[in-house]
Amino acid sequence: MHKVPVGVLGASGYAGRELCGLIAQHPGLRLAFASANDQRGQRARIGATEVTYVATEDAPLSKAEVVFTALPHGAAATWVGNARATGARVVDLSSDFRPGVHASANDTQAPYGLTELMRDSIPGAGIVANPGCYPTAVLIAIAPLLTEGWIAPGATINVTAASGVTGAGYSVRPDLLFAEVAEDFRAYSVGNEHRHLAEMRAVAAQLGGQDNDILFTPHLLPVARGILATITVPVKEYVDDPLTLWRDCYKGEPFIEIADQPPSLRDVVRRNVVRLSVAKAANVRQPTLIIISAIDNLMKGAAGQALQNANVLLGLSEQAGLPA
Amino acid sequence: MHKVPVGVLGASGYAGRELCGLIAQHPGLRLAFASANDQRGQRARIGATEVTYVATEDAPLSKAEVVFTALPHGAAATWVGNARATGARVVDLSSDFRPGVHASANDTQAPYGLTELMRDSIPGAGIVANPGCYPTAVLIAIAPLLTEGWIAPGATINVTAASGVTGAGYSVRPDLLFAEVAEDFRAYSVGNEHRHLAEMRAVAAQLGGQDNDILFTPHLLPVARGILATITVPVKEYVDDPLTLWRDCYKGEPFIEIADQPPSLRDVVRRNVVRLSVAKAANVRQPTLIIISAIDNLMKGAAGQALQNANVLLGLSEQAGLPA
Amino acid sequence: MHKVPVGVLGASGYAGRELCGLIAQHPGLRLAFASANDQRGQRARIGATEVTYVATEDAPLSKAEVVFTALPHGAAATWVGNARATGARVVDLSSDFRPGVHASANDTQAPYGLTELMRDSIPGAGIVANPGCYPTAVLIAIAPLLTEGWIAPGATINVTAASGVTGAGYSVRPDLLFAEVAEDFRAYSVGNEHRHLAEMRAVAAQLGGQDNDILFTPHLLPVARGILATITVPVKEYVDDPLTLWRDCYKGEPFIEIADQPPSLRDVVRRNVVRLSVAKAANVRQPTLIIISAIDNLMKGAAGQALQNANVLLGLSEQAGLPA
Amino acid sequence: MHKVPVGVLGASGYAGRELCGLIAQHPGLRLAFASANDQRGQRARIGATEVTYVATEDAPLSKAEVVFTALPHGAAATWVGNARATGARVVDLSSDFRPGVHASANDTQAPYGLTELMRDSIPGAGIVANPGCYPTAVLIAIAPLLTEGWIAPGATINVTAASGVTGAGYSVRPDLLFAEVAEDFRAYSVGNEHRHLAEMRAVAAQLGGQDNDILFTPHLLPVARGILATITVPVKEYVDDPLTLWRDCYKGEPFIEIADQPPSLRDVVRRNVVRLSVAKAANVRQPTLIIISAIDNLMKGAAGQALQNANVLLGLSEQAGLPA
Repeated sequence: MHKVPVGVLGASGYAGRELCGLIAQHPGLRLAFASANDQRGQRARIGATEVTYVATEDAPLSKAEVVFTALPHGAAATWVGNARATGARVVDLSSDFRPGVHASANDTQAPYGLTELMRDSIPGAGIVANPGCYPTAVLIAIAPLLTEGWIAPGATINVTAASGVTGAGYSVRPDLLFAEVAEDFRAYSVGNEHRHLAEMRAVAAQLGGQDNDILFTPHLLPVARGILATITVPVKEYVDDPLTLWRDCYKGEPFIEIADQPPSLRDVVRRNVVRLSVAKAANVRQPTLIIISAIDNLMKGAAGQALQNANVLLGLSEQAGLPA
Repeated sequence: MHKVPVGVLGASGYAGRELCGLIAQHPGLRLAFASANDQRGQRARIGATEVTYVATEDAPLSKAEVVFTALPHGAAATWVGNARATGARVVDLSSDFRPGVHASANDTQAPYGLTELMRDSIPGAGIVANPGCYPTAVLIAIAPLLTEGWIAPGATINVTAASGVTGAGYSVRPDLLFAEVAEDFRAYSVGNEHRHLAEMRAVAAQLGGQDNDILFTPHLLPVARGILATITVPVKEYVDDPLTLWRDCYKGEPFIEIADQPPSLRDVVRRNVVRLSVAKAANVRQPTLIIISAIDNLMKGAAGQALQNANVLLGLSEQAGLPA
Repeated sequence: MHKVPVGVLGASGYAGRELCGLIAQHPGLRLAFASANDQRGQRARIGATEVTYVATEDAPLSKAEVVFTALPHGAAATWVGNARATGARVVDLSSDFRPGVHASANDTQAPYGLTELMRDSIPGAGIVANPGCYPTAVLIAIAPLLTEGWIAPGATINVTAASGVTGAGYSVRPDLLFAEVAEDFRAYSVGNEHRHLAEMRAVAAQLGGQDNDILFTPHLLPVARGILATITVPVKEYVDDPLTLWRDCYKGEPFIEIADQPPSLRDVVRRNVVRLSVAKAANVRQPTLIIISAIDNLMKGAAGQALQNANVLLGLSEQAGLPA
Repeated sequence: MHKVPVGVLGASGYAGRELCGLIAQHPGLRLAFASANDQRGQRARIGATEVTYVATEDAPLSKAEVVFTALPHGAAATWVGNARATGARVVDLSSDFRPGVHASANDTQAPYGLTELMRDSIPGAGIVANPGCYPTAVLIAIAPLLTEGWIAPGATINVTAASGVTGAGYSVRPDLLFAEVAEDFRAYSVGNEHRHLAEMRAVAAQLGGQDNDILFTPHLLPVARGILATITVPVKEYVDDPLTLWRDCYKGEPFIEIADQPPSLRDVVRRNVVRLSVAKAANVRQPTLIIISAIDNLMKGAAGQALQNANVLLGLSEQAGLPA
């Protein structure tokens, strides 16, 4: 079978390595190059495969039909342009082209790759803006409420989320050392100012949530991977079985799981899924739904969803090469 | 120096062992007995000390001036009564005498031992109802808002909290095995029905929060000890420096720390403190404060606060034997 | 493609669940039944698949061409017999038929399924005795030394090994609770009396090591899965590049990795491989090789090797369905 | 009570911070200064105390009666000299003055501060060379065998040891990130070339082990603190109760615990003790003792022992300020 050549720029970080590992297992793709400036010329084993890194400037961009850019925020846009100039299509894992972030001066259009919600806009795109990890967990969870108009007018959507350390990328920072993270738990970006907030707000507004604010407090977990978001949403009224809304909305979606019991990280780790549960809050006057949404930040929150988008771009089966 | 004899019923659980370890270091107390039905006759090392367990029914209750009951909820009330019958005063670590839990048929009065808020009611008490771990973290955090009337009328106080596994007690349950907890994170009692909710609601109402509901979602962390509560409270308006409210309210309190930066578990583990920060939420129309409150569930959330209450009961220095 | 029906007895333990997950991904096998007495009638999700457990006595043994028995040691032998009576071939993950363990009164012959060393004896077998996890890591590491006669006469082979908690099986024991294992490390079966010792001694003797004792001290690691064995072997003399011995001996073996650098658990977890390194000890008068051998105790140490053996039994590709 | 002023150079690393925390609790010492070049001018909270760091060059050395140098190996010697020049006595936590390491060109004499074995040489010393963490765990364990001549002539003492990550110091290295250490276990310095080997060899030779080599393989554990050493020693013959040797040798020592059961890390963490067990190996022709020795690498392995040595230097109670 012919395999489509793809390349990864920024392949030594956690998301980039995950992507290389997935590509190696993919039945329809092959890795044309993997770049990593800090490890140029070195070989690295990723699961059962091995890659040899080239410098980003030496990457043979023209040899790839799809280029994945897993470069730092801000540094990605240039390389996205370089790859586009060779005719390659790009799935960008940085925030550079995402809604709420993309500078207005940059008039490049890039659909937002939250695949289940934006699937139709992807096949013809030159660039897909792959969503952030927290926004993926949150937006998939609240989209049905937004589009169906269930949320109480003017209500604030409260998101408390916790991520494993790979969510911070492969950053050699003292606060990410084992002895500083183990047996600890901490909030960060407290005050509703995390950079993912703008992305969530922009997409939520597109989906009908202009009237509702989002209050987002992320936390750092002593685990390697996984995000759990606990989302409380004041609603107009309770219905008998609120889960029906999500079941209908995501019917037939292979990567969305609507669960009777609250999901935990181990339900989703190493899988390209969003798994979520919904409960009605007792003992409160304001009807409020409690959604628990879990993803693997490196899979559905990064590399997995990027591959899902590439599958759509290339007209392959959307599930190809992805562990459900 | 004369040391006051005290006893511990239920001394093989996590809280009971912590209490025995603290008593061993306390300059004014000595351990007269430690009971544990499942380990009767056995010796156990607790930190630098050793205890020999007796069966609870064999505990020489009359030899203790203060008896700590760290027995399961429901089982404690009887032994509290037995200890009282010998003239001992009791600090009960179970929920049996706590507000919102204590059956109305039982007319025994027991002040609630949230020491900083209820200090005056303790010295003359026969029984002190030692607070639950989550309620300690939450009520110390929100009490100033309640008593000062800052909270928006009718607003819901949203509490998302996470606890280390010792919060579940020394329970040999499959879901608490290492291989099930490590690398995982999960919510439980989702739906606002955790048994600590009634305790928080009852005390919050006493402090002026009759008009405000509490929405509480606890989580299980892959750490041994510590609770972090992330509390969002809609307020009437923003003031310049909201921390001033807590600084004034808890002025001179040795076990309450008001921090400029959000506390993390490692700031509080093995210490008898509540450490908290307060931030104003940006990017929301409804002014909202975000409080992060951290405690060690076995210290300020159980054994430490129990000893603090015993110090008050006995007229000792409130800080005696407690690691600040 | 026709898929061969297989069954798993004891499918709710860690090894049994791993096996069901592997079978679900296997291109040539399908799961005919999965038994678990304690969860009979329940559905369980295992990775991306789901199984419904039956009671072991209700398992339709005759519908499987291969039955995997992942039952407790001692309990397996009876069910191995029952499965054989229906004509099924059996891969037994218990120790009941292993060398050094198998009671002489029981004259049933079962080749030892350390596939790379005993491959020829498997195809015609009715029962394969799947090796223990520690013996797999150790015997693959020392076999070349034994068969080539490199070990110093009369020398003791010193094995210090450490295993993740799933090595103890799905045992609801207090010493395996998260709060007891996290941040801890401990030796067990100290004194050279672990039940895997007899298995290692018996096979090592078959391979030529009658003259050499094994001193084995296992430890419990605060990780979920993985075994690392540190093996020191006094040798007759040093050769220039000792790794050549292992490279020659395991040439072409897809599941044996000879590494330049000492392997760590993360090199092997979720993979069906033994990865090992060999170093010459400096600063000692007695020439001694230091072998570091790493496996995933649930994969090459249990379920993966069982599937590898089933592949051989059935004449399928030995690598089918196995993550290298 | 008069408190003796002491200073800490290199007080922002793990050992230096531990030391500051211990000094704050010590009844007879007070912290005159704490230096940390990378955090000069900053305040840091250490447990219940706070320190303000000065640059090492600004440390008022003359104000301290004892200076603890917790500086990097190689950098310590100069500052030890500077401190001595002011008349202060020094406990050096680096390896610069330890046996087997100390360059012969440097003729400064410094007794080795393995307190229980070398106590008499300390009171008059200007400099005490505080032992390394691994050597402390190992030498305390094997000293009785060496001094009593129990070891088989020419036999190799085999040490496999594992340490928590703080043993590597506060090093911001990629291999010490949480995501790289959690769920992993690995050997390092494989080949008997760890820098602690020379220290162990030199002291063991002084104690009578000139005829016995040491084979030492350290490992990195996914825990914050603690060392467990598994030591096998071929002996001339078995005696009935080998533990008697250690019980006699360490009689009355408050910081040495001879245990019936193998110690685990949680027995010793946050305590200034060596806890060890001894077992006779079964199933081997060569009589061999298996010693398990556990310490907290930051306490008895660094800061605690340094304080113990300072107590001896100053004529204070050796146990003052130390958690047994």
